[in-house]
Amino acid sequence: MAWNRVAVVGAGLIKFGELFEQSYEQMAAGAFNAAVRAVDKGFDPKQVEAAFVATQRGTLWGQEGIGGNTVPTAIGLAGIACTRIENACPSGSDAFRVGAMAVASGVYDVVLVIGVEKMRDKSTEEGLLSRAAAGHPIYTRGETAPVLFAPFATRHMHDYGTTREMLASVAVKNHHNGALDPYAHFQSEITVDDVLKSPAVCTPLHLLDCCPQTDGAAATILVNAERAHEFTDRPVFVAGFGVATDHPYLHEKSTFVGLKATTLASDRAYQMAGIGPSQVDMAEVHDCFTITEILDIEDLGFVEKGKGGVASLDGETSLTGRIPVNTSGGLLAKGHPIGATGVAQLTECWWQLRGDAGERQVEIRNGYALQHNVGGRGSGVSVVNILTNKQ
Amino acid sequence: MAWNRVAVVGAGLIKFGELFEQSYEQMAAGAFNAAVRAVDKGFDPKQVEAAFVATQRGTLWGQEGIGGNTVPTAIGLAGIACTRIENACPSGSDAFRVGAMAVASGVYDVVLVIGVEKMRDKSTEEGLLSRAAAGHPIYTRGETAPVLFAPFATRHMHDYGTTREMLASVAVKNHHNGALDPYAHFQSEITVDDVLKSPAVCTPLHLLDCCPQTDGAAATILVNAERAHEFTDRPVFVAGFGVATDHPYLHEKSTFVGLKATTLASDRAYQMAGIGPSQVDMAEVHDCFTITEILDIEDLGFVEKGKGGVASLDGETSLTGRIPVNTSGGLLAKGHPIGATGVAQLTECWWQLRGDAGERQVEIRNGYALQHNVGGRGSGVSVVNILTNKQ
Repeated sequence: MAWNRVAVVGAGLIKFGELFEQSYEQMAAGAFNAAVRAVDKGFDPKQVEAAFVATQRGTLWGQEGIGGNTVPTAIGLAGIACTRIENACPSGSDAFRVGAMAVASGVYDVVLVIGVEKMRDKSTEEGLLSRAAAGHPIYTRGETAPVLFAPFATRHMHDYGTTREMLASVAVKNHHNGALDPYAHFQSEITVDDVLKSPAVCTPLHLLDCCPQTDGAAATILVNAERAHEFTDRPVFVAGFGVATDHPYLHEKSTFVGLKATTLASDRAYQMAGIGPSQVDMAEVHDCFTITEILDIEDLGFVEKGKGGVASLDGETSLTGRIPVNTSGGLLAKGHPIGATGVAQLTECWWQLRGDAGERQVEIRNGYALQHNVGGRGSGVSVVNILTNKQ
Repeated sequence: MAWNRVAVVGAGLIKFGELFEQSYEQMAAGAFNAAVRAVDKGFDPKQVEAAFVATQRGTLWGQEGIGGNTVPTAIGLAGIACTRIENACPSGSDAFRVGAMAVASGVYDVVLVIGVEKMRDKSTEEGLLSRAAAGHPIYTRGETAPVLFAPFATRHMHDYGTTREMLASVAVKNHHNGALDPYAHFQSEITVDDVLKSPAVCTPLHLLDCCPQTDGAAATILVNAERAHEFTDRPVFVAGFGVATDHPYLHEKSTFVGLKATTLASDRAYQMAGIGPSQVDMAEVHDCFTITEILDIEDLGFVEKGKGGVASLDGETSLTGRIPVNTSGGLLAKGHPIGATGVAQLTECWWQLRGDAGERQVEIRNGYALQHNVGGRGSGVSVVNILTNKQ
C-alpha cells in the first residue's frame, strides 16, 4: 500500500455553542478563515482546488444538507470542486480521510476539509438526535442516542464492576479540559457529585453523562507533503486512517461491552500508520456519553477491556496521565456539532503535535495523535485518523 | 498531475421504476449483485475493501440517508469501510469520482461505488423535489425544480430562437432510446405532439419535458488498473473527471443560457483526460428537463452555444447521429433516482465502450464516453466523468 504523503498545514475552528445568530454559511466561513489564519507562512484561499464538506443534516428543514453546493460561495470560492461527505457522527473524520485520499491520489495538491453543523435551530423534539434511530419497524422504536448507549453502560457495570462514579470521572475530566479550551461550548469545572445528582436521562446515564447539542464548525487544509514547506516549517502529516462498519441494529450486536466498528477501524489505522496504541501520545475520542469514552479507550487498545472505568477514575487519561484523552474537552464539554466534531478533534491533535495547545498541552514523546468517532444506527460506523509530527 | 490508473471491471443496475415493494436496502443489494455478475472472470464480494454510497436523501423520514451505515450489512459486507457521498443531483457521479481517487491514492485496490435512491415512498408534496429549493428567504420561495429550469428555456428561446418543438425533440429521442433499454422506467415511444399537448408544469416546460420521479439503484466496481486483468480482459478505464460549483442562487447567475458549473467541470475533465469534446463517442448527460439537455450539449462543447435546439431537432444526438446523447433513455425516460442516476449513466457508458449495449449500441471510434450531472440549488454543482476503453 503505497500512497503519497499528505500534510496538514492549517486547522482551526469557531467557538462552539448555541449559535442562533450565525447562519450555516457564516459558521463555515468562520472556520475556513480560522484555518487560513493558522497557516504559518500565509495562505491565499484561491489555492484551494477541492473541498470536502462534512454535514450530517444541517438544519433539517433549511436544506443546508447540500453544503457541497453552498459552502464554496459562502467562503468566497464559488467554482471549486466541492463534495459533501456524510457518515453519521464520524462525518467530519471521514471527510478528512476522503480529503487525504484526494491529495494522496495526486489529483489535487491543496484540499480543504470543513465540517459544519447547526444543531440548535430546531427544538429537541424536531431535532437531530430524536431522529437518529429509525430502522427496524419493531426493535428500534423509541430509540434515541442515550437509549442506544445505556445498555452498554449497564452491561459494562455488570461484567466489569464499572460504577457510576467511574462514568462520572470521565465527565469531570473532560469538563476540566473544556474549561481550559477557549473554543469549548462548556467552560466550567464540574464534580462527580454534580454528575451523580444531575437528572436521569436513561439509566444509568444522567444529564452530565451526555454531550450537549451544540452548533459549530471546523476546518483543516491538506496539501501534498512535497509542497508542505511552502506553507509551514512545522507540518503535521497523515500517518494512517481506518473506517469500519458493523451491523446497524442493536439486536444484531455480538457484544454490549465494546463497539466492534471501533476495534476494526483502529486496527486498520494502526496498520496503515505502522504503530500500535502504546505509541499514541494523546487521543481525541468519541465521548458522546461517558460510557462511550470508556468503551473507546478499551476498543482503541489504550487500556485492557473492562479496565476503562478504573483507568478513568485513576486519572490515566487526564492531561498529565499515561494517555491523555479528549484534551479539548471532548464532546461532553466542547460539544458535538456532528459534521464539525471530527474536524475539530483533528484540529486539537494538530495543535498538540505542534506544541500549540497552551494550558492543555500534553507531553509529545512518540509524535503520534489519534482521532476517533463512532456513530450511526447502532454505532455501526467508526473512523480513526492518526496524525504525526515526524518528518 | 500523476495518478494511478483506475479500471471499471463491473457495473450494473436494477430495473428503474416505482419500486414500492423494495426497501432501500433491497435496491442496494440488487444493484450490487448486478455489478458483481457483470465481472467477466467472476468476483468474490469479499474482495471489496471500501464502498462509497450515493444517496441524496433516501426516503426522507426513513433515515436511509445514513446509507454509509446501512448498505454494507444489506449487501452482506458488514465491516468494510463505507462512506455516503451527497452532492445534490450529481451525488452518484461524484461518488464515482471519490471512489476513483480512493483507488488512485493506493490506499484501496478494490472499491464499490453504489447509488441508491427511493423517490416514491412519499407523496410529491412531501417529497424530494418540492424541497430542493429552500435558501434565500425572499428570492427562492416557491422554487421547485421546473421553476428553476423554466427561465433558462424562455431565455434560450428568446436569444437563439429555440422552439418548443426543439425541446420536445429531446424527449422524443430519449423515450425512443428508453424503449430499447430494459432498465428504463418508461419504455414507450412518444411523439412531438404528445409533448406539446401534455399538461403545462411551468411554462414553457410541459409534463413530458420533465423527468419522472423514479426509484432505482446502480453499482460499479473499481480496481487498481494494474490488477484489472484478474477480473476482465475488457476493462474500461477512468480517463478523467471534473467537479465545479457555481453561485447557488438564481439571482446571482451571470447567464440564463448556460450552466457555468457544467462548462467548468467539463473543462477540468477534458484537461485531465487529455481530450476535447470532438473525441467523445457518446455521452450520458443530465436531462432532468428537455432544456437541460440542450444546455448540456452546448456547455459540454458538443455543439456551438445556441445551436443545441436545432442540433436536437436535426438528430445529431440520436443513436446514429454525430454525437449520440442519452442512449440509455436519459433521466427523461430511464428516470432520475438521484443517488443512482450518475452511477447508472456510467454503467451505460461502460456497456457502450465494451460494445455490450445491444440495440442501443453506438459506434465507438475514439474510445471515449462522457457522463455528466448538474444540480443542486441553482444548478450550482456539476460533475463530469470520462471513461475510455483504451489500454
